[in-house]
Amino acid sequence: MKLLEERILRDGRVAEGGTLVVNSFLNHQTDPALLDALAAEFRRIFADAGVNKVLTVESSGIGIALLTALRFGCPMVFAKKSAASNLSGDALTAEAFSYTHGRKYELMVEKAYLKPGDRVLLIDDFLANGNALNALLALVGMAGAECVGAGVVIEKAFQDGGRLLREKGLRVEALARVASMEWSETERAGRIVFC
Amino acid sequence: MKLLEERILRDGRVAEGGTLVVNSFLNHQTDPALLDALAAEFRRIFADAGVNKVLTVESSGIGIALLTALRFGCPMVFAKKSAASNLSGDALTAEAFSYTHGRKYELMVEKAYLKPGDRVLLIDDFLANGNALNALLALVGMAGAECVGAGVVIEKAFQDGGRLLREKGLRVEALARVASMEWSETERAGRIVFC
Repeated sequence: MKLLEERILRDGRVAEGGTLVVNSFLNHQTDPALLDALAAEFRRIFADAGVNKVLTVESSGIGIALLTALRFGCPMVFAKKSAASNLSGDALTAEAFSYTHGRKYELMVEKAYLKPGDRVLLIDDFLANGNALNALLALVGMAGAECVGAGVVIEKAFQDGGRLLREKGLRVEALARVASMEWSETERAGRIVFC
Repeated sequence: MKLLEERILRDGRVAEGGTLVVNSFLNHQTDPALLDALAAEFRRIFADAGVNKVLTVESSGIGIALLTALRFGCPMVFAKKSAASNLSGDALTAEAFSYTHGRKYELMVEKAYLKPGDRVLLIDDFLANGNALNALLALVGMAGAECVGAGVVIEKAFQDGGRLLREKGLRVEALARVASMEWSETERAGRIVFC
């Protein structure tokens, strides 16, 4: 998606170590108008998928998932990362690993909000190793619901997550696919190349 | 706001111990159309406040804050709860306490996204003891920005947070103000009364 790629080139940056930092418009400060345009694109791409629920994981997936659900006219559920005392009754849980934070965590969704008959679209801001999406996919399976696809804002296509999910048969659509982020020690900056 | 009060009475419940559980439409599963109506109401209430930034805290404030920012046509920033390795450079931090999780945590906003000249509207899902809003207010102060008010979806008016913030001179607007939630041991349920 050209609008997004241009924005990443303009306002994103590659941090030392190869992290793509998009804190100024996607996952710390957010640009609501941009996110709304991305949501419209997910609505267009998955128009015929019969989506009746959008599922994401806190925190940075929530904004784009909510706008997408608003356009589908369906509820949005966000999986929680740890046991909170106000989670009631039975919950589905799956383990995931965050490379950003360097630790394992548990993803949890109350059973009441993910059910057989649900046609679930997974939405997230990033796809790299696919840990979060795999855990969400496991939750959908445990619930007996159907996953109709995954929409991610940015895929790091040089990592394995997307390929492995697609090999499982999941329809994965990324609005921007980063082919490489070469880090230059001399320039102390990275060059982002899209697929 | 009548629409919200009716929804709380219909789909909310009081858990043992006096927690108001609105997981089915506000902070686990979310109803995007309801949240959009709440955002429109915040836009109406704060129409003349010159808002040019919306600030909230992850996770459950993000959805309503983003929709509100979309209507104001301004960025939305969410404060993060712990140091993540992809937070760059200088950050403003303030301490807060979560009664839900029973522990202290650090709220953090990168300096780049909160600046002198910003007219900041705080948005959150709940106001009880006011811990999160007080920490956000501190961050706005540290940045040399101006806080033009706080919009919360549900205020527990029987707790002190709202009163203390208003005594400080902050404009606090709640879309639903809960006066009491009487727990009946016999019925194993609570009765919600609005102000």
